[in-house]
Amino acid sequence: MHYLDHAATTPTLPEVTDLMVGILREDFGNPSSVHGYGRRAKELVEDGRDRLAAAIGARADEIVFTGGGTEADNLGLRGAAAKLRGNGDHIIVSAFEHHAVLDSAASLERDGFAITRVGVTADGRVEPDAVAAAVRPSTILVSVMTVNNEIGTVQDVAGIVAAVRAVKPNALIHTDAVQALGNMPVDVHAWGVDLAAFAAHKLGGPKGVGALFVRSGVPIEPIVHGGGQERGLRSGTLNVAGIAGFGLAAAIAAKEVDVKTERLAGLRGRLLEGMRQIVPDLVVNGEMEQRVAGNLNVCIPGTEGETLLLLLDREQIACSSGSACASGALDPSHVLLAIGTSKALAKGSLRFSLGRASTEQDVEAVLTALPKVIAQARRAA
Amino acid sequence: MHYLDHAATTPTLPEVTDLMVGILREDFGNPSSVHGYGRRAKELVEDGRDRLAAAIGARADEIVFTGGGTEADNLGLRGAAAKLRGNGDHIIVSAFEHHAVLDSAASLERDGFAITRVGVTADGRVEPDAVAAAVRPSTILVSVMTVNNEIGTVQDVAGIVAAVRAVKPNALIHTDAVQALGNMPVDVHAWGVDLAAFAAHKLGGPKGVGALFVRSGVPIEPIVHGGGQERGLRSGTLNVAGIAGFGLAAAIAAKEVDVKTERLAGLRGRLLEGMRQIVPDLVVNGEMEQRVAGNLNVCIPGTEGETLLLLLDREQIACSSGSACASGALDPSHVLLAIGTSKALAKGSLRFSLGRASTEQDVEAVLTALPKVIAQARRAA
Repeated sequence: MHYLDHAATTPTLPEVTDLMVGILREDFGNPSSVHGYGRRAKELVEDGRDRLAAAIGARADEIVFTGGGTEADNLGLRGAAAKLRGNGDHIIVSAFEHHAVLDSAASLERDGFAITRVGVTADGRVEPDAVAAAVRPSTILVSVMTVNNEIGTVQDVAGIVAAVRAVKPNALIHTDAVQALGNMPVDVHAWGVDLAAFAAHKLGGPKGVGALFVRSGVPIEPIVHGGGQERGLRSGTLNVAGIAGFGLAAAIAAKEVDVKTERLAGLRGRLLEGMRQIVPDLVVNGEMEQRVAGNLNVCIPGTEGETLLLLLDREQIACSSGSACASGALDPSHVLLAIGTSKALAKGSLRFSLGRASTEQDVEAVLTALPKVIAQARRAA
Repeated sequence: MHYLDHAATTPTLPEVTDLMVGILREDFGNPSSVHGYGRRAKELVEDGRDRLAAAIGARADEIVFTGGGTEADNLGLRGAAAKLRGNGDHIIVSAFEHHAVLDSAASLERDGFAITRVGVTADGRVEPDAVAAAVRPSTILVSVMTVNNEIGTVQDVAGIVAAVRAVKPNALIHTDAVQALGNMPVDVHAWGVDLAAFAAHKLGGPKGVGALFVRSGVPIEPIVHGGGQERGLRSGTLNVAGIAGFGLAAAIAAKEVDVKTERLAGLRGRLLEGMRQIVPDLVVNGEMEQRVAGNLNVCIPGTEGETLLLLLDREQIACSSGSACASGALDPSHVLLAIGTSKALAKGSLRFSLGRASTEQDVEAVLTALPKVIAQARRAA
């Protein structure tokens, strides 16, 4: 099988699995317990926290572990909005955020907040000036993703922060960085954001664990209440093995990112070049310059993405059409519509996302399979 | 080391770890993906769902997987309250619920709901009549735990359901069953509840995964928004390995519960008998009859629980004072205060909780260590 769907999820790194297995077998304590089992579990959690913090340029006490990236986005948006309600009711997001952000914003809209969804350029960029222009005196929160999950375009987060701060210094700025860590250097303090969401399983860590960076001094409310873990911001027994695995995956990702990026850019270049020969009318979605190295998102005119996926799957090739979360949905991708793709064209989209384990053989397998697959898909359409 | 703190968390069962390791190594797909990796991951999730459903007497489509028991309690309470807001604003909980329920209720109180906290008998029972007496025309939701996490007393959930339904047929009834599964037979439909919360790590499963039973047709709102997983009730990439491990742990727990219960009741009887000889003025917290077999919660007059814990830890014995979640808190247990224990006495509480791996040697180790430990603790106090 050829796995080219790393933006959906990544194989768990063997080192990470080994670490987690050892913890599952031996270190089963509850980190809230005072006895030796508990202290050992707490140590493992704090090691994981230290490693994640180092990988994203944060302090350990700025990390709140969650049950995943989606929960981290929800905590960032809903937690900040609940806290800042007295200061204003306006929130800005970009039009092509992940549903974790868009749907959190929509839920806040139902609760009485005003939401502005800032448009995106045809290149797949959120312009800092466009965000700043949307700011109102009542703006309390801005959320723009670091890397788009479908087309891989990298946003100028630092530029957006500067533009917003110039007009509204006290608005909080959240970024969904779920697709960034492991695919580009991450430095939340250099970016200047207040809140940033991460998910372990996008970078060789396990599913079921994420984190929210909460800049020191930034006030948010919890969305899950209880035992008071994570400084009261996310109650619930900590997922010790998952957090330790997340920390190790983050450390490896941060160390390898430059080398990996260069290698994947080469593989992706070969994939794009080959596809252009096979599909002369190929449409590349989003710019190629400011884009994570592993992502290639294209439209193949006259096809349906779902059909392409199923045919590629038969050829032992795993990729996606849009995001995994929206799989099975028949609506065209909101991301492609946001960058101005027509509905008809957007239906024929394919996302290839390369990762640490990707090889030339994977790319060649796609290029070998595509002519037949596209011909079949066009006949079916 | 002698681990007598199974109510805080349990050793992951070797079979569960083996299953999870295999998934972490091989089956890394995102269950939302259409391709083979995704389908395989979805199969594993659905196997886990089937197993958990069978273990609690539910249908598979009545299970919503979460990031833990605390999130499940939050989803039950906040999700139901958000949905039923139009019908009324009154919610009933018992006074000795876990903080996951009490703090969810408190957060709803801040949002404008009226909360009644029903008192508990000195035995550690929530009387069905007392709950029914608290019902108002505006009551939308009742939450009473199945098994108290500190003193282990088992509530008459079916009786509470019947009593509430007699006066308010359309109020929803939630139960925090986190301490029940694995420690007693669980049958949510026989109990008649609408919502029930579970946590994998209390029954030999991994930390970081829980579930909410949502009876078919019962309306709730999500608290985490996004990709629409779990029928829109809990968005976020599913924790495949964790869910599969949870399902297996639940199946084993359900199969073994009767044999385990009988064995643990014997061990606990020996522990209690031995402690009564060592501490003639020992106070047992809560009745011994309607109580899960592994739990023994006592107060040792003239001691501080935290001191006892630390001294026992030096003797290689792991137990707790109150719940793990509240460890380090200097306030006396709200559970003990609810059953009428004095503040002074409540400070000297110890919870021993036996589990699948507990042996006679563990019990004897406690009885051997206690005389010295108690003497030291009394000198320190």
